[in-house]
Amino acid sequence: MPPVPVVIGVDVGNTRLSTALIDAAGNILHLWREATPAEEGANAVIPLLIQMIRQAQDYAQGQRNQSPAGVGIGFGGPIDHITGLIRRSHHVAGWDGVALGELLQEASGLPAFLENDANAGGLGEALFGAGQGADSLLYVNIGTGIGGAVIINSRIHRGAHSNAGEIGHVVIDPWQGPICTCGKRGCLEALASGPALGTAARRRLQEETNTHSALTALPAHEVTGSTVGEAAQQGDHLALEIVQKAAEYLGLALAGVANVLDPELIVIGGGVSELGDLLLEPTRQAFQGYAALPVAASTPIVTAQLGYDAGVVGAAAVALVELEAT
Amino acid sequence: MPPVPVVIGVDVGNTRLSTALIDAAGNILHLWREATPAEEGANAVIPLLIQMIRQAQDYAQGQRNQSPAGVGIGFGGPIDHITGLIRRSHHVAGWDGVALGELLQEASGLPAFLENDANAGGLGEALFGAGQGADSLLYVNIGTGIGGAVIINSRIHRGAHSNAGEIGHVVIDPWQGPICTCGKRGCLEALASGPALGTAARRRLQEETNTHSALTALPAHEVTGSTVGEAAQQGDHLALEIVQKAAEYLGLALAGVANVLDPELIVIGGGVSELGDLLLEPTRQAFQGYAALPVAASTPIVTAQLGYDAGVVGAAAVALVELEAT
Repeated sequence: MPPVPVVIGVDVGNTRLSTALIDAAGNILHLWREATPAEEGANAVIPLLIQMIRQAQDYAQGQRNQSPAGVGIGFGGPIDHITGLIRRSHHVAGWDGVALGELLQEASGLPAFLENDANAGGLGEALFGAGQGADSLLYVNIGTGIGGAVIINSRIHRGAHSNAGEIGHVVIDPWQGPICTCGKRGCLEALASGPALGTAARRRLQEETNTHSALTALPAHEVTGSTVGEAAQQGDHLALEIVQKAAEYLGLALAGVANVLDPELIVIGGGVSELGDLLLEPTRQAFQGYAALPVAASTPIVTAQLGYDAGVVGAAAVALVELEAT
Repeated sequence: MPPVPVVIGVDVGNTRLSTALIDAAGNILHLWREATPAEEGANAVIPLLIQMIRQAQDYAQGQRNQSPAGVGIGFGGPIDHITGLIRRSHHVAGWDGVALGELLQEASGLPAFLENDANAGGLGEALFGAGQGADSLLYVNIGTGIGGAVIINSRIHRGAHSNAGEIGHVVIDPWQGPICTCGKRGCLEALASGPALGTAARRRLQEETNTHSALTALPAHEVTGSTVGEAAQQGDHLALEIVQKAAEYLGLALAGVANVLDPELIVIGGGVSELGDLLLEPTRQAFQGYAALPVAASTPIVTAQLGYDAGVVGAAAVALVELEAT
């Protein structure tokens, strides 16, 4: 009996690099992690990635007497699936136009597949996480930014310009919304990402000097998405209001997308999703108020299941799907 | 050589019923049209449809010595593709829960396929209209209401609850927008449909008694989508402002959907689209301001090409696709 195929999942994040040997059922057999040498740029990251992939190859050979079938790479930034190039990285210099898939394919001798990390994360959830058994889902990753993925027939829907899933820059409130890092006013990312929670809290604290929030004890630069989230979890009224307001915008955005895409379910991942029902309950309420009836009544909104390992499992899922298809 | 297959396209509208004999290249060979006996309800419409389909069968037999391969039916209201039932009609009584496809299949002895008219229209444009050659498109029909369709890989994307494409009830401005017929505030349909143009104009005329618009000469009930459209085409400033404002909302809605779906192009059909570039130029400008860069730069927004015949050609397209698939 031939061994269950294994692949290498690679997650290229702005703060950490992860590789893992993963089997065709999505199980992590072994995982390696390194800090991203972000300040040294892509020229330092690429050799480190090659070394980490070799480590995984050696492990597979030594422990399982098996060669991995391929490498899936999730990259934290926009890529062009048609040309196979990285479009840009917002945080690490030197990535623009790099053909990372090709580079890692040559270095490892294995077929390698490049995907942006939101698409990889969505596919991972669809195959091995919260979306198992669903044909289609909308995945939204809420952290420092907001990314997303559209999964249809258990495959990534990439769209005509490799842009599908970009829910973070859907403009929700162009009239009163805050300016987004992308320059537009009122993008979902400017209303509901981690940094948006911090910004909203700092503004409220400045305006309402009288508030009883525990956040008043913090210096302004420590009022961030995570401290607001922690305060909300401890029942702080101001922090709860801010999370609820973000959830309303999120519910409005999800309702609009779901009306047109009509996915089987919606999966919310990323750091901010760790707030769980504190975020998701008001999101569901807003969603039900804004979505068309058949969608509002029967589209579950659930938290992602792969958590911290979503990156490597998602990248492995990309490789598994591509290898099956080729 | 076997003859080119022909199918019967059936368009069940609220004001008119159309059937046509259509070949596999989307050409209309013959067309029949009747007024919808709307006041008598579905019980009067169904026998008339059966009679019109027989007429098309007889014509195919007599003129071409050929039996049509199937019947495609576009229905002007929500249908449930999974159960094959009509969900409801907003304008004609007695349709709720009717299995129209089955009924017409039994009566004609031909395989029959039921679809809502927006999906049929979108597929028609993709195969035989403005979307020829495109793999994916977003179709939006702007008339009394706003419907839409998502076409991916040249097939209708129906979604998990047969609701995909429902862009008319995407909530765009829940804060200041007008109440929609569906009960929600600020749906696209309440901001950019034909009736929405009329409502906006009547409000402006009431507020601004001093305006020089030609619309002031009309009694209020004649200030409608079509008279506003006509006035705009003649350069009337108030009417132009109203069309431009509607176009801005449309561009905002299209940008949000396109960010997530990333279609190859966007096709605008329906009565209001007859305004052409008067509507589409400000729509494109708003779209480019609101969409993410790769989408904003390379997603054409064009008018539908099938015009008055979109209903029957779209319905025929549904039958042609389904017959190929079975």
